[in-house]
Amino acid sequence: MFNKISIIGCGLIGSSILRAVEEKKLASKISAYDKSTNVSDYLKKNFSAEICKDVSDAVKGSDLIIIASPLSSYKEILLSIQPSLKENVILTDTGSAKKEINKIICNLNLKNVNWIASHPIAGTEYSGPEAGFANLFTNRWCIISAGKKASLDKIKALENFWTKLGSKTKLMTFEDHDYVLSLTSHLPHAVAYSIVKTAINNEDKFKDDVIQYSAGGLRDFTRIAASDPLMWKDIFIDNSENILKVLDNYSKNLNEIKDAIKNKDSKKLLEIFSSTKKVRKEIIAAGQDTDKPGFGRK
Amino acid sequence: MFNKISIIGCGLIGSSILRAVEEKKLASKISAYDKSTNVSDYLKKNFSAEICKDVSDAVKGSDLIIIASPLSSYKEILLSIQPSLKENVILTDTGSAKKEINKIICNLNLKNVNWIASHPIAGTEYSGPEAGFANLFTNRWCIISAGKKASLDKIKALENFWTKLGSKTKLMTFEDHDYVLSLTSHLPHAVAYSIVKTAINNEDKFKDDVIQYSAGGLRDFTRIAASDPLMWKDIFIDNSENILKVLDNYSKNLNEIKDAIKNKDSKKLLEIFSSTKKVRKEIIAAGQDTDKPGFGRK
Repeated sequence: MFNKISIIGCGLIGSSILRAVEEKKLASKISAYDKSTNVSDYLKKNFSAEICKDVSDAVKGSDLIIIASPLSSYKEILLSIQPSLKENVILTDTGSAKKEINKIICNLNLKNVNWIASHPIAGTEYSGPEAGFANLFTNRWCIISAGKKASLDKIKALENFWTKLGSKTKLMTFEDHDYVLSLTSHLPHAVAYSIVKTAINNEDKFKDDVIQYSAGGLRDFTRIAASDPLMWKDIFIDNSENILKVLDNYSKNLNEIKDAIKNKDSKKLLEIFSSTKKVRKEIIAAGQDTDKPGFGRK
Repeated sequence: MFNKISIIGCGLIGSSILRAVEEKKLASKISAYDKSTNVSDYLKKNFSAEICKDVSDAVKGSDLIIIASPLSSYKEILLSIQPSLKENVILTDTGSAKKEINKIICNLNLKNVNWIASHPIAGTEYSGPEAGFANLFTNRWCIISAGKKASLDKIKALENFWTKLGSKTKLMTFEDHDYVLSLTSHLPHAVAYSIVKTAINNEDKFKDDVIQYSAGGLRDFTRIAASDPLMWKDIFIDNSENILKVLDNYSKNLNEIKDAIKNKDSKKLLEIFSSTKKVRKEIIAAGQDTDKPGFGRK
């Protein structure tokens, strides 16, 4: 399908792509790069791909380059690989925010490069190459946002790549992507961090009790609040405009609940709680979660 | 163990207790009552217990009465059953807030009644008797708060009852219970309702996209926001004092994140996100959640 695929950054996402690409034999040559020597050592032991010491070596002759490192590392990577890019290459990424990155790439004014962003809506609360697995993308969505200069056949080729990894693809503009993700992913993360910070406080004499009885709801939030801090710091800064806007709306909705509690307004509380109950059914109907109680956890 | 056990209110929790009590044969006589005729009909078809039309009939001669109906129904139930209570009976419940209910029961000044509250930290996002199952309480905590007039041997007997249902028990004052639960359960629910209300808005043209790409975080919150509205309305009103206090702390923590985003303060964001990451490990170490990625959902 591709002659050579290069993966830059091999944490949870990058290593999962690497596993899938090797397993499914999606390229005759595969190269990978990670700036951490620990990760590189792990990759050398566990993969047959060429593991490069230098990021510009990794991308030489490559037809598809996938950047799967934190958003804040893109600029440096792009500057390093720019002179080594093959003509007509597909350059993609896996980042969770797109608009700012798209600006950076446009400003670099890369010649004969098909910049087409990818965002696989897949992941776990674990990070690092040990946490990756080949079928992470199976039955998950991958949102694709094409740069202005990308050719149609390259967009098609990238969609096809994600389909081979088991994903369903959807084309979206950079701006729409960032707005939708601010609601589906970035807002939930901001909220999860705040709630865990509030509930589990080392100075509270009930801290151990709070952990012990967390099955009453709190434990669901701790999963998200355990996600990779570096990655999330970048997302919040990159998509700050959308996130701040939705956080304001969120605070309004929270205040509505607060006021209803203060006023012991049964009718209002019942109305709010009934409206959110329906949503779960829609998410299950859309195939986006299991209908088993408690996520089917044991 | 007990000669007769009566269960009042047979939704998710009550019907699960009924199933466990029947399966494990924890009483020679079992009676149950639910004010809904639909539920009563379901119970008659699916259980061998005596299903009563009248709540006062259900409790006659009973040694253990378990109220598993919404908090707002307790007063009416207690007034109805008061004349029919057997001397030295254990009266318990399964409610998620305790202090106010304890006041109501103390004010009723019931004679020769061992009021000992129970709170099994168990449940799912589903409600109604069809959603119940006998091992809902297995390996879960049950918090027990004893009223002033309860005898030690009756407290022991109730602990023993929950142990037979598979639970671990913990004694706590009514006040401590309500504070701890405001953090572990009530705050997460308030937050989940607000976030789902914010993210999924019928007037937003991206509503379908938000549902489609909810696997990025949002779907975790929709589970909790699907819980029984009537039950939760009661909890928020009953434990309003604690909940409003922790919501204020929560808002402070959320504003700290907001400010860090506004100021693009990488250091602060990294600090917050790193601190909450540790908590997940403590919860897993305490046996309160699975360590499988994504709750092990498929």
